[in-house]
This record gives sequence, structure tokens and C-alpha cells, in this order.
Amino acid sequence: MVRIEIRVIYGDTDQMGVVYYANYLRYFEAGRSEFLRAKGLTYRDFEEQERLLLPVVEAGVSYHAPARYDDLLGLEIRLTEARRATARFEYDVRRGEDRVASGFTVHACVDTQGRVRRMPRDLIDRLAVGEDLAR
Amino acid sequence: MVRIEIRVIYGDTDQMGVVYYANYLRYFEAGRSEFLRAKGLTYRDFEEQERLLLPVVEAGVSYHAPARYDDLLGLEIRLTEARRATARFEYDVRRGEDRVASGFTVHACVDTQGRVRRMPRDLIDRLAVGEDLAR
Amino acid sequence: MVRIEIRVIYGDTDQMGVVYYANYLRYFEAGRSEFLRAKGLTYRDFEEQERLLLPVVEAGVSYHAPARYDDLLGLEIRLTEARRATARFEYDVRRGEDRVASGFTVHACVDTQGRVRRMPRDLIDRLAVGEDLAR
Amino acid sequence: MVRIEIRVIYGDTDQMGVVYYANYLRYFEAGRSEFLRAKGLTYRDFEEQERLLLPVVEAGVSYHAPARYDDLLGLEIRLTEARRATARFEYDVRRGEDRVASGFTVHACVDTQGRVRRMPRDLIDRLAVGEDLAR
Repeated sequence: MVRIEIRVIYGDTDQMGVVYYANYLRYFEAGRSEFLRAKGLTYRDFEEQERLLLPVVEAGVSYHAPARYDDLLGLEIRLTEARRATARFEYDVRRGEDRVASGFTVHACVDTQGRVRRMPRDLIDRLAVGEDLAR
Repeated sequence: MVRIEIRVIYGDTDQMGVVYYANYLRYFEAGRSEFLRAKGLTYRDFEEQERLLLPVVEAGVSYHAPARYDDLLGLEIRLTEARRATARFEYDVRRGEDRVASGFTVHACVDTQGRVRRMPRDLIDRLAVGEDLAR
Repeated sequence: MVRIEIRVIYGDTDQMGVVYYANYLRYFEAGRSEFLRAKGLTYRDFEEQERLLLPVVEAGVSYHAPARYDDLLGLEIRLTEARRATARFEYDVRRGEDRVASGFTVHACVDTQGRVRRMPRDLIDRLAVGEDLAR
Repeated sequence: MVRIEIRVIYGDTDQMGVVYYANYLRYFEAGRSEFLRAKGLTYRDFEEQERLLLPVVEAGVSYHAPARYDDLLGLEIRLTEARRATARFEYDVRRGEDRVASGFTVHACVDTQGRVRRMPRDLIDRLAVGEDLAR
């Protein structure tokens, strides 16, 4: 599990005065980048060195409580599955103890031509450190 | 079912050259607005006259094929459930015959203080016209 | 001059209840695409066939009056300058007769390696049709 | 002058592989919030306690060099003018020593009914600490 903090900016809110629902997927993506970095990787290296991409094939969000401008949110990112050619991340967004949102993304592993590829074993091993991972 | 067209702008894409995954939730929202308008309502009226809001409590997207800059996408919006205090919309995004993405949103009906409210019967009746609706 | 219409979605607004200031640059970009299309071009073709890009090197916006959720805005796009290797577009956003915002973008013409290139003469000729153009 | 760091996420880039031009205005806004916080204020307090808003009336950006996914950008924010009812911020975005973008925003001081208001003297005094300010 990796944890980052996100400060809500004005541009993230909508006229209801709360974070617009699509922006949680932006937060999740910022979280995935930091997850990889915390494991000693960067997604940029992953793309450039491995010539592999991890496009999102499915995403879901549950909205528990609104987040507001200037809130400092805590985002926890977990890698919960790493199969042959797919990976699943789960996300929890909190403000203090309050649960704001939770969600998941499922990713396929593809090469730069878009063909499905097996995820490199050593990559999974590195990502799995400290995770409670189905594989 | 209501159908709208969406032209992909540069700002919707990411460096993979495809529509960024969060932006489908923006497309869905544009679709919901036009769905209401097609039924003779506007969400603005709904907020201002009924003093009710329909915040999203859950959302999900499946990504079938990438959409690219300048694509003209067709978005179909269906209201598939209207219960006591929740509603569910489903969405299909296509480019020509190709399926690009599909998804759903679940909405709660709340008043301006955030209390759950029963959805007005006449509202559901108006939205239900032409829909295959569980209620 | 080319004119398009833009419907303000929830995701474009911020908690002040008005269109977030950065989103006018998104509107301008949607306008540029339609400007090119109206002249019989697409920016995608331009990139793919001419192997040229028109990145923005400068942009400015003046905000005259707020635009709100569900407003139907009219956006006028004019090409006002086409020099050796730069072009300037100007934009006016109105709601009915009311002026909402105005702005400009200046673009460089570069090849796919980022080197400045002369704008093709026939391209400028096509874009100039119906424009009051300094060149 | 206040300085913050910004990590470029995938959602900030476009298909040219660089940060989409509108997103610099988002970065600037994140910078303004942190500028206020560094001076012991928050914009949220400002809105709620003073019942004043600082909407943007003009904005401009010059794009010097592209920023890319995963770049760690440094953003410097300066308050350069504080007049009777307007304020001007200036921004510099760098990646290491390289200048990526620069820009400005001009803000009006208005009350919650949108009427222009004199900026409170003690507010300007607090913001001016450490700034090279025309007033």
C-alpha cells in the first residue's frame, strides 16, 4: 500500500461545491504513478524501457461523501491482483477518518502495437513487495 | 434512449494518443443533460424548481477500444432504473459500428441539505417515456 | 469567421457556479478544430499529411461575464494573422448578445522534430478564405 | 515569492505528448492557493470570512518549452500588483533550469453579489510580505 496526499483545487470542484465525479479518476492516476515510484519504478520508464503499456480496461468509483475545495485528501493505493496480462489497483480516498470515495482500475498489459503481452515476472515481483496480492 | 454526438478535442486526449479514461465520465454527464432536455426537462430547472439534486453515488466504465482526436463519437444514454430515491443511467459510446466504451452511473435523489428524498412521481413518469425502465 | 455553439456541462463549472477559467482554452481549441473543418481541413490531416504541428506559443483570455451550467454559448473564431511561421486566432464567446469572454492564441508552425517551418502557402490560402487576415 | 512543485500526470498531457495548454492555468491556480497558505491565509477562509471573491478577469500564458508526463515542475508565484480592487499574480514554470512557461492572472475583488469591493488593507499587508509589490 502506498499513500499520497492530494490538495483539492478550485478547478477540481463543480457548481455543487464538491469535487466533480470524473476527477477522482485523475486522483487515482496520480496515485498509480506514485505507487510505481514508491516501488522504484516509473511508468515513463516502464513505457520506454519495457515497450509496454498498461491501459485501463475497466474503472469504477463509489462516492461516499463529498470532498470540497482546499481539502487535503489522503489517497491509499493497493495492487490487489497481478495476473498473466492484467493488473488491478484499488483506491481509498479519505479526509481525516472520513471515507470520501473508493474505487478500482483494471489494466491490460499490451505492447506498443496494442497486442496483449504477459506481464514481466520481475516487474510483478517488484510491484508485489508489501502488497497483499492475488497472482 | 437518447443519442448525442461528441467530437473529441485535443484536450480530451492523453499522450497515448487516445481519450483519457476520466473524460468518458465527462461525456456521460453531457449525455445526461441532453437526456433530460430530450424529455423536456433541464437539470438546471430540476435543481432550481424542485430543490433537488441527483449526485452520482457510483460510476463504472468499461473501455473496449480507444477513441482518438477528432473522432465523432455517438453516445447513447438510457435510464434503466428509477427506484424510490435512486436512478441508474447506462451509456454506450460508439464510433460508427465500433464499441468504444460503455458504463453506468447511479444517482441518489437528495435535497439541498443533502437529505435523501423520494423522487417525484411525475418526474419519473416524464423521464420514463420511451425508456425500458425498472421501477 | 467561423461560429460554433458550446453547451456548458457541470464538469466545466467550479464551486463559484461559473465556468472555470481554464476551460475557455478548451472551448477555444474546440473552436479551432471546427474553424479548420469549415475551411475543408482537419487538424488531424494537417498533422498526418503535412507532418506539421501548430503548438500554441502564447494564449490570453479576458473574462467579461460569467457563464453558467447549461448555458448555450456562441463562440466565434477568426484567423487574424498568418505570418511566415506563426498564426494568430482570436475568439469571442457570447451568450445571446452578452459578451462572456474573448481571447487569442498564437501558434508556431513546427515539424515533427520541433523545428520551425514555413507555413505552406496553399494552406494559408485555404485558411484565409473569408478572413480579414494580416499576412 | 512562493514556490511549489507539480508532478505532471497522464491526464495533464495531450496526444502531442506534452502538457495540454489549458492545464497551465490549473497549475497557476494550485500555485495561488499555496501562495495564500504560505502567507497564513486560505482562499476558503477568504471567501467565507471576508465574504469576498477574487475572480480572474484576465489571464495570459507564454509557452517556452514543452513539459512531459512525470516531469517534476517548479512553479514560482509572485504577487506583483495590489491596487484598490485588483491584484496581479505572475507565474514561472521551470523544469530544473529550463523555462517551461510563464504567465499572469489579474483578479478583481468582488463581494458575493458580484459588486466590486476595495481589497481590505490588512489583507494586502499580509500578502505583501516578501513580495516586490506595486500598490
